[in-house]
Amino acid sequence: MSATTTSPSLKEALAKACADIESTIDALLPMVPGDESVLLEAMRYAALGGGKRLRGFLVVEIASLFGADHKQALRVAASVELLHAYSLVHDDLPSMDDDDLRRGRPSTHRQFDEAIAILAGDALQTRALEILVEPETSSDPLIRANLALALAQASGAAGMVGGQVIDIRGEGRALPLDDVRRLHALKTGALIRYAAEAGAILAGVNDERRQAIRVYGRDIGTAFQVADDVLDTTASAEELGKTAGKDEASGKSTYVSLLGIDGARAEARRLSDRAREALSSFGTQADALRALADYVVERRN
Amino acid sequence: MSATTTSPSLKEALAKACADIESTIDALLPMVPGDESVLLEAMRYAALGGGKRLRGFLVVEIASLFGADHKQALRVAASVELLHAYSLVHDDLPSMDDDDLRRGRPSTHRQFDEAIAILAGDALQTRALEILVEPETSSDPLIRANLALALAQASGAAGMVGGQVIDIRGEGRALPLDDVRRLHALKTGALIRYAAEAGAILAGVNDERRQAIRVYGRDIGTAFQVADDVLDTTASAEELGKTAGKDEASGKSTYVSLLGIDGARAEARRLSDRAREALSSFGTQADALRALADYVVERRN
Repeated sequence: MSATTTSPSLKEALAKACADIESTIDALLPMVPGDESVLLEAMRYAALGGGKRLRGFLVVEIASLFGADHKQALRVAASVELLHAYSLVHDDLPSMDDDDLRRGRPSTHRQFDEAIAILAGDALQTRALEILVEPETSSDPLIRANLALALAQASGAAGMVGGQVIDIRGEGRALPLDDVRRLHALKTGALIRYAAEAGAILAGVNDERRQAIRVYGRDIGTAFQVADDVLDTTASAEELGKTAGKDEASGKSTYVSLLGIDGARAEARRLSDRAREALSSFGTQADALRALADYVVERRN
Repeated sequence: MSATTTSPSLKEALAKACADIESTIDALLPMVPGDESVLLEAMRYAALGGGKRLRGFLVVEIASLFGADHKQALRVAASVELLHAYSLVHDDLPSMDDDDLRRGRPSTHRQFDEAIAILAGDALQTRALEILVEPETSSDPLIRANLALALAQASGAAGMVGGQVIDIRGEGRALPLDDVRRLHALKTGALIRYAAEAGAILAGVNDERRQAIRVYGRDIGTAFQVADDVLDTTASAEELGKTAGKDEASGKSTYVSLLGIDGARAEARRLSDRAREALSSFGTQADALRALADYVVERRN
């Protein structure tokens, strides 16, 4: 199965979720008058208009699987996409990955300036957490507090930001496979796993179901990253919408440099299969999540 | 009354709160092994070892006034100081205020590097919000969620970060007094007002008391900023522990440039008096807060 044969129902569900998440973000980041309007412009520039919305889709699908309210799920989905957008804005900065291109457009600090990009990232993070604790996200304050806690744990020093530090420090020197696994578990894995769990937290499911979703989220997150390393080697900048071949140029250890392209593809497949297995106790309502496990390793961008 | 005659009881209460907040932050930012340890080092460098702890002191004093748990109050106090530390780390960056000196030491990006400083600021913000929603902060999840909501509102695009954008955009051109007032109400006022309110939220007080504290926090915050503008003109870098005379050099409109030094001093006094009046319904237990209203306009650094 290739990306062009992504199951029609998954394709439709992804497109629907993308549109819904887009309009939810649009409503959650209203423009303001005054000198600070440029900040909102930059936040909207970074958060709207593109992206695969993998994280938001996970929230929406898993919330739906467990019967959570759809509008509330969209708020949680928008929140994780804002958090993800903040991380991309800061990662692209000159002192970090120094990337001029993101989703086929100038990165935020190129479109605005560096100060505005830093502040837009800061405010996107704030807004992501703020949305979760607003009463509209759940009538149960414990669910609101727990969503914010889980997002903070996934994105802070012991999660995404910690992973970014390891990534920066690892450039130009060879890392063993275990270190690369840990790097990605923190840098991208924690937030993807959170996205899956957030749907379960919102629905207030029991520990057993939450644990199954946690495993699914973990494996799909790692599979996504391994596939990303493969794409960075094999796809063009046009297909990716960002600079290609950057990992090799910067001397980063990747799944491809450690396992070879075929080895990395096999690893992604193995993880994708294991993610599907984690869903074995769920019925056909989880079919979109199963198809997603294929999609993340077969996509072209 | 001059800063050297700050009432002995306030001096003692400030010193005690500083020490307690310092050790609480120390415990809330434990070191970690691995490549990401430099991130925790930078977070601790930025958050520990100095500062007036005005915001944390407000939390602790107001929580105490309303009988909230002291250990929980210290967590909320530590949280607002971490949020404040994040804002200073990012404000000092080369693309923002480009400041090499903070609290008499190299600013975080000078002590580490720019990427680590950006990420340390990011993770400090995350941790500040995370602490509030951890169960240890309050057994009532509604209080936890409401604390996080209030902090996010005070520090995001409609608060501190919005104010920083107006500040950056206002450099080199004259702003009228109303705009300067609004800038500071957002940039520094919102977080100081939050600090005061957080003590009341933690204690679960009624709306009338919360409103009185909100007014106190608003006025003391503005008084603090007006006094800051005066100090920037009159104090030495040694006294301030940061670069002095920066506002004039960068062509910023300040209370001093708009009102003159004497006019700014009178404005600070007026605001300080109004902050005291807001406490009229409280007894002698609020005396430290009254003394603080004098202190913020009479301090030398």
